[in-house]
Amino acid sequence: MKSRKLGRIPLPPTPAQENMAKRVAIVGAGVSGLASIRCCLEEGLEPTCFERSDDLGGLWRFTEHVEEGRASLYKSVVSNSCKEMSCYSDFPFPEDYPNYVPNSQFLEYLKMYANQFNLLKCIQFKTEVCRVTKRPDFTVTGQWEVVTLHEGKQESAIFDAIMVCTGFLTNPHLPLDSFPGINTFEGQYFHSRQYKHPDIFKDKKVLVIGVGNSGTDIAVEASHVAKKSSHETYQRRLFLTQFHRTLFSFITNDMDIPSYLTPTQRDLSLVFLSTTGGAWVMSRVSESGLPWDMLFMTRFHNMLRNSLPTPVVTWWMSRKINSWFNHANYGLAPEDRTQMKEPVINDELPGRIITGKVLIKPSIKEVKKNSVIFNYTPKEQPIDIIVFATGYTFAFPFLDETVVKVEDGQASLYKFGLCYCKALQSDYITYIDELLTDINAKPNLFSMLLTDPRLALAIFFGPCTPYQFRLTGPGKWKGARNAILNQWDRTLKATRTRTVQESPFPFAILLTLFLVLLVAVFLIFL
Amino acid sequence: MKSRKLGRIPLPPTPAQENMAKRVAIVGAGVSGLASIRCCLEEGLEPTCFERSDDLGGLWRFTEHVEEGRASLYKSVVSNSCKEMSCYSDFPFPEDYPNYVPNSQFLEYLKMYANQFNLLKCIQFKTEVCRVTKRPDFTVTGQWEVVTLHEGKQESAIFDAIMVCTGFLTNPHLPLDSFPGINTFEGQYFHSRQYKHPDIFKDKKVLVIGVGNSGTDIAVEASHVAKKSSHETYQRRLFLTQFHRTLFSFITNDMDIPSYLTPTQRDLSLVFLSTTGGAWVMSRVSESGLPWDMLFMTRFHNMLRNSLPTPVVTWWMSRKINSWFNHANYGLAPEDRTQMKEPVINDELPGRIITGKVLIKPSIKEVKKNSVIFNYTPKEQPIDIIVFATGYTFAFPFLDETVVKVEDGQASLYKFGLCYCKALQSDYITYIDELLTDINAKPNLFSMLLTDPRLALAIFFGPCTPYQFRLTGPGKWKGARNAILNQWDRTLKATRTRTVQESPFPFAILLTLFLVLLVAVFLIFL
Repeated sequence: MKSRKLGRIPLPPTPAQENMAKRVAIVGAGVSGLASIRCCLEEGLEPTCFERSDDLGGLWRFTEHVEEGRASLYKSVVSNSCKEMSCYSDFPFPEDYPNYVPNSQFLEYLKMYANQFNLLKCIQFKTEVCRVTKRPDFTVTGQWEVVTLHEGKQESAIFDAIMVCTGFLTNPHLPLDSFPGINTFEGQYFHSRQYKHPDIFKDKKVLVIGVGNSGTDIAVEASHVAKKSSHETYQRRLFLTQFHRTLFSFITNDMDIPSYLTPTQRDLSLVFLSTTGGAWVMSRVSESGLPWDMLFMTRFHNMLRNSLPTPVVTWWMSRKINSWFNHANYGLAPEDRTQMKEPVINDELPGRIITGKVLIKPSIKEVKKNSVIFNYTPKEQPIDIIVFATGYTFAFPFLDETVVKVEDGQASLYKFGLCYCKALQSDYITYIDELLTDINAKPNLFSMLLTDPRLALAIFFGPCTPYQFRLTGPGKWKGARNAILNQWDRTLKATRTRTVQESPFPFAILLTLFLVLLVAVFLIFL
Repeated sequence: MKSRKLGRIPLPPTPAQENMAKRVAIVGAGVSGLASIRCCLEEGLEPTCFERSDDLGGLWRFTEHVEEGRASLYKSVVSNSCKEMSCYSDFPFPEDYPNYVPNSQFLEYLKMYANQFNLLKCIQFKTEVCRVTKRPDFTVTGQWEVVTLHEGKQESAIFDAIMVCTGFLTNPHLPLDSFPGINTFEGQYFHSRQYKHPDIFKDKKVLVIGVGNSGTDIAVEASHVAKKSSHETYQRRLFLTQFHRTLFSFITNDMDIPSYLTPTQRDLSLVFLSTTGGAWVMSRVSESGLPWDMLFMTRFHNMLRNSLPTPVVTWWMSRKINSWFNHANYGLAPEDRTQMKEPVINDELPGRIITGKVLIKPSIKEVKKNSVIFNYTPKEQPIDIIVFATGYTFAFPFLDETVVKVEDGQASLYKFGLCYCKALQSDYITYIDELLTDINAKPNLFSMLLTDPRLALAIFFGPCTPYQFRLTGPGKWKGARNAILNQWDRTLKATRTRTVQESPFPFAILLTLFLVLLVAVFLIFL
């Protein structure tokens, strides 16, 4: 059955086909779409994947131009979760891949996956899904009609199931109404979805609105090329200084009036990053340089988070997060400090703030012709470009409202839509465990502690890598145990590219001995 | 006397002039030169500063082209020591300046200083010092003859003292002999001194040699624009995969051979950073986001460093430094781990390594036509551009060898040349205290503890900011005490650009109370 060649659009089913494999329509050939095809094939189903563009990869395929109906990356995007946490559960990234994979390599990986499991044969490229409707006999057959458009030609086919793998980063959220005066702005403005390269910011005064992952990335990139402090300001300053010095020296006969007493107020950095609610920002490079998600996404941490009182968790997490940089001192502390679940990942933001290249600002009060006014600060800031990194809404234009209704960015989907609506980000391990329990694939840690303690400890205290989903149950993969036990080796290998001599003597031991001796001597002579 | 207009080249002294102000020649109008002019004026001396270029600022004045005899910056240089640590001792940076000052603003600050203290009148621009020699009657008069060149015209003048303020980042150290085959290399290579903008690395395969401050900066910058993994490699990989899969499936009838079992070895990142000895790398953003030097450069730390046994200090320091990222795991750990005194400052390097954009490599074994071979790794790496970030030697071309002899990068100078030869970096506080003691300007912390305990504690436990040199003694500045007490305010103000609501309740206190209560209950019921 696997090797059977699928026609472009399968014919409608006849009664004889009822004993045949169920036919599944998959919308989109991105990360989820590919996994869906693969799983359908494994389960003996008959998947047909409709991909609107001319290649696979979805979100991860960078193009120089934004494509309608597909998520759009900027050139520099790097994955926010590390290779061990974001791989397919039975297909680790090659070990020479970096821990956080740039988009071009992520696409390469997806192509390897498609190639490995022979998925291309199931994908119909350049085919847009126009409409998915319940068949008139849906209550009996559970079947759907899918209308597609391929090279100007509309076709229709019947499927037993639909898997919607279109992602949620396609429809920009651009709340212009919240920015009074934006229609009078004479500079350039656009949604972060339109952003590709930092070149457009060259020598411009840039404002980025929103401190999500895109907003912080774009502000940091812009800060490398945006306009620097102008000479004109300096001249004015000198003039005022000279004037004041002369004045003061007449009055006080004291030449020691520091020049910075002059009333000239300047903002020397010209990338402003405006946020209403603030955010917790974390680095990919976490404690001792290890990947942040391999340290934080563990069953042990999850247990602590869910069993300790919320204020304790909040306090402890904010302490951890603030140890990199104090978010209040950097103007970034979130208004709702309990919002720990979706930290922004950026390695460079505090470095850009401390060197004055990015300036954090509060929300916008008003936009003018060539400037903006921020709340709580009276001064107008000249601005040439505004980037709205204000996020996305999701929509299923091909689905009738009676099937899925999206309201206020929420959709009423079973288990949040099974695999997204940001559920994975929110409470990853709890969510995944629920799914694993449903399909009877959740490893039993208690019995494993007796039979395979090394693995059990690695699963409980180590990162909750996707190989854990393949240890038992319907999708069992014999490589899973090894993949878990070697996950740290693969992680360290990626950066250990120069051999380093270990210290000749483990000094910590010597120190401990010394201290013990000291205490002993102290006690004896006391 | 101060207001006396200096001629371009003063006339030789006559016996009548012996009671007049001593005349001092200052070579270079950079950071040190400006301070020297200012101090000479304060002391009633008569300074003449000779500056080879057409403006002040020395090192800190960025130009698009390298100038002979002057240090050369790349466009993106930001100071490695923060504004409170690197300011003139009685002239703090304006409080709206960022904590680490980009070069253009540093120059602006120097111009403010020159303007504030009216230093320009003492500087002769476009005037090169050709030769400084002892006068025949030197043993009696202690006088020097200075020969200068201004617009093609050589002149000579007599001075009572010479201050050499030419810095030590002008003469590139380019040890080509240590790179066998470099003469066969067909790509581009140059010393980091020649580097200005990252554009030249666009789509090139880049190798940077040396992990000093310049080397790491340049590698990080290059990694934003350098060539990415090539499609060709991917094709080859797929081809091999396909071949192996077919082969294996014939033999084992098992289609589950992961594609990464193929022997294709690839290096996906194409900025290589080669180091022989490694280095400790620190971020400007230190604990809780505070400036690194304000935390580490304290008298308290200095006392610990100098009183504890070296192995303890080394162990403790490397623990601190490795808490950001483990230097062994990142291939950067220095061979000599006791070398703590000159850490490299870079905020972004680990982030670029963990995302595979910069690859740390060992030393070079051989350079070939279009590639290099690293030690311990047999594979050739294609390379288009090599940057030698191999540091500087210093030289005093205008001084006779009998005056100062430079040998193997060492010069026999009193107190290492008083203000450099990297002495300030090496053991900053001890060195400074020696100088302060000599001029009787060292504050007495013991007596201060009784008279002004707040200030004494700030001096001992806080950063050793230069205002400490102005509390007492010949250069006493009445603003020094305030400058010390407000140094943290100025530091925090620079990044607190969005007002953040404090947490409604200090949770830490609640937690402490809770724990105390718990222990109490526990003890009662025991």
